[in-house]
Amino acid sequence: MATTDIATRTYDHGFRLDPIVRSLLDTDFYKLLMLQMIRHLYPDVQATFSLINRTRTVRLADTIDEGELRAQLDHARTVRFTRKELIWLAGNSFAGQDRIFAPDFIAWLADFRLPDYELRAVDGQFELRFEGPWTHTTMWEIPALAIVNELRARTAMKGMGRFALDILYARAKARLWSKVERLRALPDLALSDFGTRRRHGFLWQRWCVEALKEGLGDRFIGTSNVLLAMDNDLEAIGTNAHELPMVLAALADSDAAVATAPYRVLEDWRRHYAGNLLVVLPDAFGTTAFLANAPDWVADWTGFRPDSAPPIAGGEEIIAWWRAHGRDPRTKLLIFSDGMDVDTIEQTYRHFAGRVRMSFGWGTNLTNDFRGCAPDGASGLEPISLVAKVTSANGRPAVKLSDNPAKATGDPAEIARYLRIFGAAGRVTADVSV
Amino acid sequence: MATTDIATRTYDHGFRLDPIVRSLLDTDFYKLLMLQMIRHLYPDVQATFSLINRTRTVRLADTIDEGELRAQLDHARTVRFTRKELIWLAGNSFAGQDRIFAPDFIAWLADFRLPDYELRAVDGQFELRFEGPWTHTTMWEIPALAIVNELRARTAMKGMGRFALDILYARAKARLWSKVERLRALPDLALSDFGTRRRHGFLWQRWCVEALKEGLGDRFIGTSNVLLAMDNDLEAIGTNAHELPMVLAALADSDAAVATAPYRVLEDWRRHYAGNLLVVLPDAFGTTAFLANAPDWVADWTGFRPDSAPPIAGGEEIIAWWRAHGRDPRTKLLIFSDGMDVDTIEQTYRHFAGRVRMSFGWGTNLTNDFRGCAPDGASGLEPISLVAKVTSANGRPAVKLSDNPAKATGDPAEIARYLRIFGAAGRVTADVSV
Repeated sequence: MATTDIATRTYDHGFRLDPIVRSLLDTDFYKLLMLQMIRHLYPDVQATFSLINRTRTVRLADTIDEGELRAQLDHARTVRFTRKELIWLAGNSFAGQDRIFAPDFIAWLADFRLPDYELRAVDGQFELRFEGPWTHTTMWEIPALAIVNELRARTAMKGMGRFALDILYARAKARLWSKVERLRALPDLALSDFGTRRRHGFLWQRWCVEALKEGLGDRFIGTSNVLLAMDNDLEAIGTNAHELPMVLAALADSDAAVATAPYRVLEDWRRHYAGNLLVVLPDAFGTTAFLANAPDWVADWTGFRPDSAPPIAGGEEIIAWWRAHGRDPRTKLLIFSDGMDVDTIEQTYRHFAGRVRMSFGWGTNLTNDFRGCAPDGASGLEPISLVAKVTSANGRPAVKLSDNPAKATGDPAEIARYLRIFGAAGRVTADVSV
Repeated sequence: MATTDIATRTYDHGFRLDPIVRSLLDTDFYKLLMLQMIRHLYPDVQATFSLINRTRTVRLADTIDEGELRAQLDHARTVRFTRKELIWLAGNSFAGQDRIFAPDFIAWLADFRLPDYELRAVDGQFELRFEGPWTHTTMWEIPALAIVNELRARTAMKGMGRFALDILYARAKARLWSKVERLRALPDLALSDFGTRRRHGFLWQRWCVEALKEGLGDRFIGTSNVLLAMDNDLEAIGTNAHELPMVLAALADSDAAVATAPYRVLEDWRRHYAGNLLVVLPDAFGTTAFLANAPDWVADWTGFRPDSAPPIAGGEEIIAWWRAHGRDPRTKLLIFSDGMDVDTIEQTYRHFAGRVRMSFGWGTNLTNDFRGCAPDGASGLEPISLVAKVTSANGRPAVKLSDNPAKATGDPAEIARYLRIFGAAGRVTADVSV
């Protein structure tokens, strides 16, 4: 394992030693799975991704130096997949399957680089957009978020002395370990790291992943971060994301075609991955609407990832739907990944124990919990709710409704149209802290 | 400041990189002050120091490898004062006074080395004795204790992986810093490090001292560790210890001479240091007896260091004595140094605020508080009550009664004789945890 003293390294942070993006594998695994399918089925679709800061009170452009942000984004554009990385992608098995990435896809990745970006500061926030082929812009989501989040943390730490940093990381390590000790009490826990996008920093996420591997053993089933999976011999975790139904709905020529887009995505996915990786993400336009209109074959899929409903209510809704379709929930899987932390993991685990298979994707509260850790009470280290969403496809606006109206994205008029198509049943507004 | 990653360094602990004793200045300042006086006034006295483990339940010889202990003791005997160290001793001012160490003493130190030792394991404990001239055996007290304590900690950590060590030190750092934050709330605090002898390890004590310097600023008035004082530009703190009255009482030819030994020590001290460093250590044979028979001039000294009575009761007894002798306690100093930790420091500080000047010597609970920090619950890191006491002088048994019978040392018959001479008034048995 790595033996980096993070406090010292943070004190010494230099661009050459620690650029924020060090590898194109430093991204979520689902991006590569989706990318392969997008390249196969939608090679000509143009998609725009945009940075959205849902924590408006944090004025990012007043905090982060725009020149430094450009330097990190520019650096990321110089990074290529290395030979070692491509050999590993080709030779490793993922989700129990060999050769999940086809040789022509691996060959195509060898020439891949991140496309250009547009950046400007408007009213204290950054407008950061990535326009171009979906096959390229999709790959900006994770590095763009990681760069902005880590740059924000680095800015907050810039004035801190060597000693304050030492205490900061000591406290954060002690806190994470106390979480690990609580999680160890859950005998059948299956937990993975989903914290790449909103991490405090790369070195810190690496430490967190090593901590979970050490502390949870088999209960730590892997990480969504492909680079950390490779470097630590862990399972790369992930399937698909909201951008698939969002783009397909945006491309649809009629309201009826918008309504069926979520199911066409699943058909694409099942065909493309030959019946593997069958996890449904039901909430892009509301889980209740999704379930009400879902074909029966959706109930044959391995499981669901409720990503914006409250975990217990969302899980119960899906379990009821499986029962209504004559399936035994005990053979099914629920993956909880929306703003989880130890308290909610424990509650959810205990609530569903024995009734359904469960796994937990632990994100921001794993890799960016520095609340109250700075010895001088420095601000700027609390996590914010920053996302990078597809906002248009082939020039048409893209929308996400979500189960939580606070997580909706898109043009208000277009959101209203989608609400007419899908209805608002089951949507409940809740605070979005991360 | 140092930027050692202690966890990594502990993992890598090798004899050549990290012998336990690195310098003869790695001792308590009072040893040098006493040594200069002993050499001047008692150059021919032979004194034996012996290791005494008051925590009998910890069987040191079953834990620590005797060969490793011998290797560390042998190594310490090879260490000499360096030229840099002697120049600093000669050129620095101590307690506001220049040239406290005479040139002939400095020249004598240049040739100093620790004398031989006798070591054997008996019934699970080490019998470790230092026999020879008082001018040499006295210098073993602190390095011998530091060696045994650190070797015990190293043994406990031997099986721990890199990661467990990382958590261990993260927790210990986080804990110390939370203590620092509590102590910061005491506006007129004057606190010094007295933790050399029972420290977890040298690197850890160095970190603790740097933490107090950073976190407490002027409220951290210095360290008893001469090496750390030199390296961190801190005041070296200390005056004298129990061995002075213990040896003088042992050498006395009559019970009457035993009874006056504590006051003859003070006369020696005052003359030798020209009226500086006037701190009384009253408890060698019981504070109550000491005060009852003390000449009036003792009340002219700067202050007292109650070292075995409960701090509040012990302080009140001394304040009442000052008042009875017509002195204003507000001009006087009490130095509390017996097993203090944040709770007792806060209580004592608040109790005496405005009534007397105070300072706190923080020892074992500063430099060796790893209770509950090991992630696997490993034992062997909790501090024990280990001392190295003078046990005979010129072949006569030496005794300490103390205000706490649990801290008495010496031959039982001789203790009984001393109790007849001094009485047992005011002595209260209390647990000795450190």
